[in-house]
Amino acid sequence: MNIGPYSVEDYMHLVKSFHGSLAPGLMIGGFMVDLARSELPDGVLYDAISETKTCLPDALQLLTPCTIGNGWLKVMDFGRYALCLYDKYEGKGVRVFLDPEKLESWPEIKMWFFKLKPKSEQDADALRDQILEAGPDILTVQHVTVDMAPLQKKGKGAIAVCPSCREAYPAKDGQTCRACQGNSPYSQEPRNVKSGLRIVSTKKEDHV
Amino acid sequence: MNIGPYSVEDYMHLVKSFHGSLAPGLMIGGFMVDLARSELPDGVLYDAISETKTCLPDALQLLTPCTIGNGWLKVMDFGRYALCLYDKYEGKGVRVFLDPEKLESWPEIKMWFFKLKPKSEQDADALRDQILEAGPDILTVQHVTVDMAPLQKKGKGAIAVCPSCREAYPAKDGQTCRACQGNSPYSQEPRNVKSGLRIVSTKKEDHV
Repeated sequence: MNIGPYSVEDYMHLVKSFHGSLAPGLMIGGFMVDLARSELPDGVLYDAISETKTCLPDALQLLTPCTIGNGWLKVMDFGRYALCLYDKYEGKGVRVFLDPEKLESWPEIKMWFFKLKPKSEQDADALRDQILEAGPDILTVQHVTVDMAPLQKKGKGAIAVCPSCREAYPAKDGQTCRACQGNSPYSQEPRNVKSGLRIVSTKKEDHV
Repeated sequence: MNIGPYSVEDYMHLVKSFHGSLAPGLMIGGFMVDLARSELPDGVLYDAISETKTCLPDALQLLTPCTIGNGWLKVMDFGRYALCLYDKYEGKGVRVFLDPEKLESWPEIKMWFFKLKPKSEQDADALRDQILEAGPDILTVQHVTVDMAPLQKKGKGAIAVCPSCREAYPAKDGQTCRACQGNSPYSQEPRNVKSGLRIVSTKKEDHV
């Protein structure tokens, strides 16, 4: 049995090294990606959607050319354990989801998926065994058309220097960058000026 | 010279295989991650923020334990070429950004970063040489405190089956899942019912 181009063991190793743990969702995600690809016409250039932010994006990033940083993977967090691979020009694609109606024969998977037991009481080995045994049998495939317009890549346009933080930002965002417009995640938005804020430069002669 | 645990050549190979191309942003991103880590206290468990969705998330995913799927990497798309690694319990962290004020000696990098020439007219080899030569010299480090409250991981809570699509979703989202509430990316939201929609099951006896 393979997952993508990998043996199950190699895939588990890869998952552990990238994702940090052998999450059940990534094992199932491997079968989901494989199933979706097998339903796509050969040679189609595809983008991907993950309908959850949990685990599944990493299966897509490991097993397809689509990543967050290259923009071919979009996370649309509906909280559904589903993914879609679709023709990046036409929008026609394949959606695969973990189907609650197919879980009756797989009690450990059902228990985990619906959180019927606290994690500490789940049997990780039995869960993994069932996932590997079930493979694609717990999944359902749908052929869909993605509404491409809202997903089109918008260019950044001209780049300006923000007068507030003095960093580069897309000029179309306004007079200052969006972080300086009040969206900063920092308890004090750092300013690249010689204020009291500790600024460490990589060159000794700068910002002393 | 190394980037993370890799030689520059191995890192370039990894970038190409994961990201699909040897994007300049990922080369610079490698130095950014290294610089941020070198400023963090030893042994601190950290989460990551990428302040852009372009390229930089992939450098973080390749060089740190933080990925989109494990939730340790957040993309906050301010369009700034900046990242932050911060103590996941305390919020204290290190922010690194590509500093426009340090680009005067690196014309190819400046040209690329500010898009002063169309991509077709840029000299990719000269750009790569300058990136490798500059290393961390085009970066600035700031010590910041991340406002943790809005970033706290919220549990999904109880899982329900959506009466509309019949898929599992977080019950707290409402009577139906968020996709069925009108946010679907599909031109017709697929329903897991025996309608005219083509549903391909992985088991012949299902959904015939």
